Amino acid sequence: MAPSAVESVSNLPLKVTSKKPSPNDLLDLDLQDSELDGRVLKTFRCLIADLCQQFNGGHPGGAMGMAAIGVALWKYAMKYSPENPSFFNRDRFVLSNGHTCLFQYTFLHLVGYKYMTFDQLKSYHSARTDSFCPGHPEIEHDGIEVTTGPLGQGIANAVGLAMATKHLGATYNKPNFPLVDNTTWCMIGDACLQEGVALEAISLAGHWKLNNLVVIYDNNQVTCDGSVDICNNEDVNNKMRACGWNVIDVENGSHDIETIVRALITAKTSKDKPTLINVRTVIGIGSKSAGDAKAHGAAFGAEDVANIKRSSGMDETKHFQVSEEVYDYFREAKSRGRQLEAEWKELVSGYRTKYPDLGDEFALRMKGEFTENWEEIIPSRESFPTSPTPSRKSSGLVCNPLAENIKNFMVGTADLTPSVNMVWKGKVDFQNPDLKTTCGINGDYSGRYIHWGIREHAMASISNGLAAFNKGTILPVTSTFFMFYIYAAPGIRIGALQNLQQIHIATHDSIGTGEDGPTHQPIALANLYRAMPNILYIRPADSEETAGAYIAALRAKNTPSIISLSRQNLEQYPAYSSRDGVQRGAYVFIEKKDADVTLIGVGAEMVFAVDTARLLESKFGLKARVVSFPCQRLFDQQPIEYKREVLQYRSKAPRVVIEAYAVNGWERYADAGWSMNTFGHSLPGKDAYKYFGFDAEVIAPRVFEFVETVRHEGVENLRGEFRDLKTVSH
Amino acid sequence: MAPSAVESVSNLPLKVTSKKPSPNDLLDLDLQDSELDGRVLKTFRCLIADLCQQFNGGHPGGAMGMAAIGVALWKYAMKYSPENPSFFNRDRFVLSNGHTCLFQYTFLHLVGYKYMTFDQLKSYHSARTDSFCPGHPEIEHDGIEVTTGPLGQGIANAVGLAMATKHLGATYNKPNFPLVDNTTWCMIGDACLQEGVALEAISLAGHWKLNNLVVIYDNNQVTCDGSVDICNNEDVNNKMRACGWNVIDVENGSHDIETIVRALITAKTSKDKPTLINVRTVIGIGSKSAGDAKAHGAAFGAEDVANIKRSSGMDETKHFQVSEEVYDYFREAKSRGRQLEAEWKELVSGYRTKYPDLGDEFALRMKGEFTENWEEIIPSRESFPTSPTPSRKSSGLVCNPLAENIKNFMVGTADLTPSVNMVWKGKVDFQNPDLKTTCGINGDYSGRYIHWGIREHAMASISNGLAAFNKGTILPVTSTFFMFYIYAAPGIRIGALQNLQQIHIATHDSIGTGEDGPTHQPIALANLYRAMPNILYIRPADSEETAGAYIAALRAKNTPSIISLSRQNLEQYPAYSSRDGVQRGAYVFIEKKDADVTLIGVGAEMVFAVDTARLLESKFGLKARVVSFPCQRLFDQQPIEYKREVLQYRSKAPRVVIEAYAVNGWERYADAGWSMNTFGHSLPGKDAYKYFGFDAEVIAPRVFEFVETVRHEGVENLRGEFRDLKTVSH
Repeated sequence: MAPSAVESVSNLPLKVTSKKPSPNDLLDLDLQDSELDGRVLKTFRCLIADLCQQFNGGHPGGAMGMAAIGVALWKYAMKYSPENPSFFNRDRFVLSNGHTCLFQYTFLHLVGYKYMTFDQLKSYHSARTDSFCPGHPEIEHDGIEVTTGPLGQGIANAVGLAMATKHLGATYNKPNFPLVDNTTWCMIGDACLQEGVALEAISLAGHWKLNNLVVIYDNNQVTCDGSVDICNNEDVNNKMRACGWNVIDVENGSHDIETIVRALITAKTSKDKPTLINVRTVIGIGSKSAGDAKAHGAAFGAEDVANIKRSSGMDETKHFQVSEEVYDYFREAKSRGRQLEAEWKELVSGYRTKYPDLGDEFALRMKGEFTENWEEIIPSRESFPTSPTPSRKSSGLVCNPLAENIKNFMVGTADLTPSVNMVWKGKVDFQNPDLKTTCGINGDYSGRYIHWGIREHAMASISNGLAAFNKGTILPVTSTFFMFYIYAAPGIRIGALQNLQQIHIATHDSIGTGEDGPTHQPIALANLYRAMPNILYIRPADSEETAGAYIAALRAKNTPSIISLSRQNLEQYPAYSSRDGVQRGAYVFIEKKDADVTLIGVGAEMVFAVDTARLLESKFGLKARVVSFPCQRLFDQQPIEYKREVLQYRSKAPRVVIEAYAVNGWERYADAGWSMNTFGHSLPGKDAYKYFGFDAEVIAPRVFEFVETVRHEGVENLRGEFRDLKTVSH
Repeated sequence: MAPSAVESVSNLPLKVTSKKPSPNDLLDLDLQDSELDGRVLKTFRCLIADLCQQFNGGHPGGAMGMAAIGVALWKYAMKYSPENPSFFNRDRFVLSNGHTCLFQYTFLHLVGYKYMTFDQLKSYHSARTDSFCPGHPEIEHDGIEVTTGPLGQGIANAVGLAMATKHLGATYNKPNFPLVDNTTWCMIGDACLQEGVALEAISLAGHWKLNNLVVIYDNNQVTCDGSVDICNNEDVNNKMRACGWNVIDVENGSHDIETIVRALITAKTSKDKPTLINVRTVIGIGSKSAGDAKAHGAAFGAEDVANIKRSSGMDETKHFQVSEEVYDYFREAKSRGRQLEAEWKELVSGYRTKYPDLGDEFALRMKGEFTENWEEIIPSRESFPTSPTPSRKSSGLVCNPLAENIKNFMVGTADLTPSVNMVWKGKVDFQNPDLKTTCGINGDYSGRYIHWGIREHAMASISNGLAAFNKGTILPVTSTFFMFYIYAAPGIRIGALQNLQQIHIATHDSIGTGEDGPTHQPIALANLYRAMPNILYIRPADSEETAGAYIAALRAKNTPSIISLSRQNLEQYPAYSSRDGVQRGAYVFIEKKDADVTLIGVGAEMVFAVDTARLLESKFGLKARVVSFPCQRLFDQQPIEYKREVLQYRSKAPRVVIEAYAVNGWERYADAGWSMNTFGHSLPGKDAYKYFGFDAEVIAPRVFEFVETVRHEGVENLRGEFRDLKTVSH
C-alpha cells in the first residue's frame, strides 16, 4: 500500500481542523501491511503474557484480546502527544475495564511516553513502591485520564470528559477556532454494561447527544463466572439504540485493524449521537484458555506462555521480546503529537489576538484557576437573614452568586431543583441545543446547570470526569438529599482518591428532614464520609457557617467536599457563629469560664446544644460552654494546642456531643453523646426530634446527672467508658 | 353489564388453579358501569387531595394519576385477603414510587384492611406517633410487602419477590398442586426507570424470564425538575424489549380501567417474559397543576382542592368524603380473599397427604424456620486446617455444607465465583430451565446458586425481596469483594431497616487484598457498616472465628450481617480463637497478668497484634495482652462488667487497636491506634502492609514509646487525646 494513503488515514483524524473528516474518504484504503500488523499484535500479546507470568498474577486475557483495538486507537485514531501527555486538546482515553491496565501501559510504552520504560512495564504486580504500573490505571500517571477499576465508573467518567469538551467548545470555540474539539474514547468490557452506574451514564450521554463520545465494547462474552449468557442475555445493540446511541458492529475484532479503524473514524464523525462500537474479540487469544473465563484474572503458567510464543512464531525461550520493527511501527506517534500541539498552539495564539478577553479567560481556565475573585462574592455575615432559615436556603444565598459569576462552576441536581436551591438568576441548562422539552426549559452546551435526572450515582461519577478533564477548569457542584449520597458513594470515593475538587450539596440531612421517614433520614452515612480519606464532610449550623463551609470547600483544591444542610429552619447565631471558625473544623461557640461541661453542637442540631446550655444554667446552676463542630477532618489538621483549647481535654469538665446521627467516631472528641442508635421515624421534623429525645428539656437533666456522676467517679474514669446518655438508663 | 360477566372477570385471575386464564377470554367484556367507575375515581382523587391538604404537605399528584390503575389492581387483578394480609400465596404488590404511598394506603382502606381505618388514613403526615401511614410504605404494616422510598429499590425488591415465587414453586409445586404461584405486581414511576439499581434488576428479570412479574409504569412524564424529557429521552419500550421484557401500552391510563385490567391479565398470563405495562397517566389529574411538576410533592392549596371537588361533582365544602357506594364497589374483596385462602388451605392439606415429607418441609419453611439443625453442620474447631488459610477459604468450609443442607439458603455472587468460595458440591444454579449457556453451566428455578452478574447493588436490593417474601423462608447470602459492597450500600441499608436476615460475604477486605490497588482496598467502608443501625459487621481472625461469625449471623433472625474476609493466608490460632468469643463481639485472645498494654487485633490484621505482643515482650520487656475484636455491635450489647474485664478500662495499661482501616469509632475502645489515614497502594498484599507500616518490627517500638509516654504523663491524660501512633512523630 502506498505510504501516502497510510499517511492520509493516520493523519486525517489527527488534523486540527474544524472540518470533520468524512468516513467515506477512507473506505477504499488499505491501512497497513497485514503481515507486519500480525507481528505487532503477536508481539503485544506475548508481552502481556510474559508480564503476567513473571509474578504469576494479573489480568492478561482482556488485554490480549483487545490488541487490535489498541493499534487502531494509538496508531490511527487518537489525537495525543506522547511528549506532552497533558496537551489540552488531546483526545481522552478511558479504560473502564481497568483490570486490563496492561493494555494501556503497553501502548503508552510503545508510542513513547517517556516515563513508561520497559523497566516500568515490568514493575506491574511487583513489590516495587516506585512502580507507575499499578493493578488498575491511576490518574497520577501520564497518559491516564482517570483512575478506574471499580466497574462502570470509567464509562461514567468518559461521559463527563465528553461533556467537558462540549461545554468548553460551546463556551470558547469561534468560527475557524475550534479550541476544544477533542474526542473521548472509552473501552468497556461486558461487566461495565451490567453496572447500574454505567447504565445511568449511557442514558444521559444519549440524552445529551454527546457525539464526541466513542465507547468501544470489548465484547468477549466472558466474565469471571463463565460465559456472559449465564447472567445477561440482552440485545445490547438495541438497548443502546433505544438509549439514543449509534451502534457499529465489528465482527473480527481480534485481528481486523482496518475495520476497527473505519469504525472508529465513523464513530468520531457521528453528527448527533454517541457511538458504541461493538467489537467481538476473543479473551486470551493465542493461549490454551482462549475464550474461557480462566484467561481473565490469572497468569497462564509457563507452559502455556511458551505455547503462545511458539504459535505466534516467536522464540519461546525468550521473555519480553519487542523488536525494533515494532517500535518503528509506532514511531510516528511522537512527531504527529508534536505537530498536533504546534498547530493547536498557533490556533490559540490567533484566537487570543482576535478575542483577547475570551482568550485571557480561556488561558486562566487552562491553568485551572477560577474566573473571578471568589472570596469577594461570598456574602458578608451582615447580609444574611437573622430569622430562622433552613441551611439549604443559606446555601443558595452563598452558592448562587458564586455559580453565576464563576464560569468554572457547573452545578447540577439529581432532580431536586425545587428543594436544593441551586438555581441562579439567568442560569442556562447544559443541554443539546436542538432539544425542545415539554416543560419549555431548554438550554445548550454552554449551559452550566445540569439536570442529572434521578441518577445520583452517575451524577457523582460523571462529575469525576468533568473535574478530571483538566484539573480546576471545571468545578462540578452536585446536589441531592444527603441520604441519596449513599447511592453516589462509589463515585464520591473515587473522586476523593483522585484528588479532584468537587462540591456535593447534601440537603435534608439528619432526622430533621421529617415526615419522609426513616428511608430518607440519614443516620450512619456521615460516618462513612467522616472516615473516608481526603474528603471534607462539613455540617454548618447557620448561614454564617454555611459561608464558611463554601470557603473551606473552595480552598480545598485537591479534595471533594460534602456540605450537609438542613431542610428545616435553623436558628441563626450571628453573635457566635464564624466562617473562620469553620476553617478550623471546630471552635468555641459560647465560652464560659470554669465551665462544668462542654456541649458540642453540630449543624442542624446546634439549637439543642445552645438551648441545653441555657437550661443547664438557668435550671441546674451548671456552667456549660458550647463548641461548634462542623468538620472533624479540618479539626484533626489543627495543632494540638488549638485542639486542647477548644475541647479542654485536661479540664474536669466532660464533653457531650449532641447530634442526631450514629455517634461512632465522636468518641475521639467527647466523653458522652446524645445521638441516634436506631433508624429514624416518619414524623414532621420537629416531632421526629422530640420522638428521639432531641429536646433541651430532656437532654439537660441527663447531662446534669452525667456531670454529677463524673464529679463523683472522677473524670479520669471516663477514659474508655464513653457514655451514651440516651441509653444509659433506658 | 351483566353481573355474571363482572364476576367472571374479577374471579378469573383470583381462582387458585394451575390452569392460567387466557387473556382472550376477557376481550369482549365490559368491566363495570362506567359512571360508577368515574365516581369511584373522583372520590379517590378528592380524598388524596384532602389528605395532603390537611397538613399542607405530601405527594398527591402521582396517587391521583394512578387511581384507575389501583382500581384495576385491587378490584380485579390482585389475589389477596384483606382479613389475612400474610396469606402465603397472595400476590405481592410493591410501590416502587413509594412517595405515592397514599395510593396504597387508600386502597388498603377501601378494600377493608382492618387496621387501615379512616382515622389512620388521616394520620398521614401528622405528628401522631401511632400512625401506620408513614411518608413512605413500611414493611411493618399489613399489606405492605417491602419498605420503599429510595427510588429504584422497590422494583429490585419486586424482582426478588418474583424469584422467590419461581423458586418455591419449582421446589414444592406438583401436578395439580400449585402451592406457590402468586404474581408480583410493581408500580414504578419515571424515576425508577432512571436509577441504576432498577436498570440492573430489569436486566436480571429479563434474563431469568420472570413471567410472574408485572411492572406497571405510571408514565406521567413529570418529575420534580419538570417534564421528564429534560433528562431522559429514551425509547423506554424498546429498551425494555431489548432487556427481554414484554411491553403493553395503555394510552388512557387515567380513566380506562377496562383496558388496564386487560393489560394486567395479559401480563399475568405471559408465558416466558416479565411484562412492563406502560400506562400514560396525568399527574395531579383534576387539579390546576395537572400534568405539571407542581403536582408532585406539595398540597394543592385549599382553593384548588375545592376546585378539584367542584369539577368532580362533589361537595366542595366537605372533606374526606367516601360514600357507601364506593365502599360497596370494593365490598367483594374480603369474601374473595376468604374463598381464595380456603381453597389454598385445602390445596395444601391435600398436598401434605400426598407428599408428607415435602409437605412437612414446606410447613417448616412457611414458618420461616431452617430445614436442618444448622448448629450441627458447622465444622468443629478440630476440623479446620492449622496452616495459614485465607478466611475466604475458611468461609467456604463453613458455608458450603450449610448451603448444601439448608434449603433456605439461596447463595449468590456478583460474578466472583472463583474468588469467594461459595460453591458447594452439587449446587444447582437458579436459572430459567430453557437457558442453554455457552459455557455449559445451566440450571433451573429450583436452583439455589445465583449468578448476579456484575450488579452488586441489585444483588443486595433483590435479596431484600427474596428475604421479604415470607420472613425466614429464604435466607439470601450474597458475595463479592468487600470494597464493592459500597455499590450495594443503599440496598443493604434498606435490608437492615426492614429487619431482614441476610448474610453478605465480603472477601478481599483491607489493604491485604494487595496489587489490585487503592480502588479495591477498602479503608472507610467498615465505618459505614459499623455505625449503621441493625447490622452486624464481623471481621473474623481465623477459621474458628469465621465459624463464630456464621453462628452470629445465623442467630440474628432480624438483622443482616456482613462477614468480612481476607483474600490472603491468615495465621490460625487454635489455642486462642473462639467461636463463642465472637458472639460477645470481643474477647481476651491472649491474657497476661499485670499487662503494660492491651493490643486489640482485628480480623486479617490479628497477626500484627500477636506478633507485636511477642516482640514487645522479647525485645522491650513489656507485658502485652491481646484482645480479639471481630464485631463492635455485638460487644456493645454486652454488660458493662464484661466490657471492663475485656478492655480493662480502669487499669493503667493503655489499649492500642491495630487495623488497616480508618480508625474512626475505635476511640470508644482504645486509647491509640495503628491504622490507615490515606487510601491504599497497589502492591502485593504483604508489601502493601509493609508499605503502610503494618509490621511488628515497626509497630512494637512505637507502642513501647507510647506506653512510656503514658507512664510519664499519667494514663488519665489519655482521655480525649486518642493517639494515632503512625502519625504522632511523622
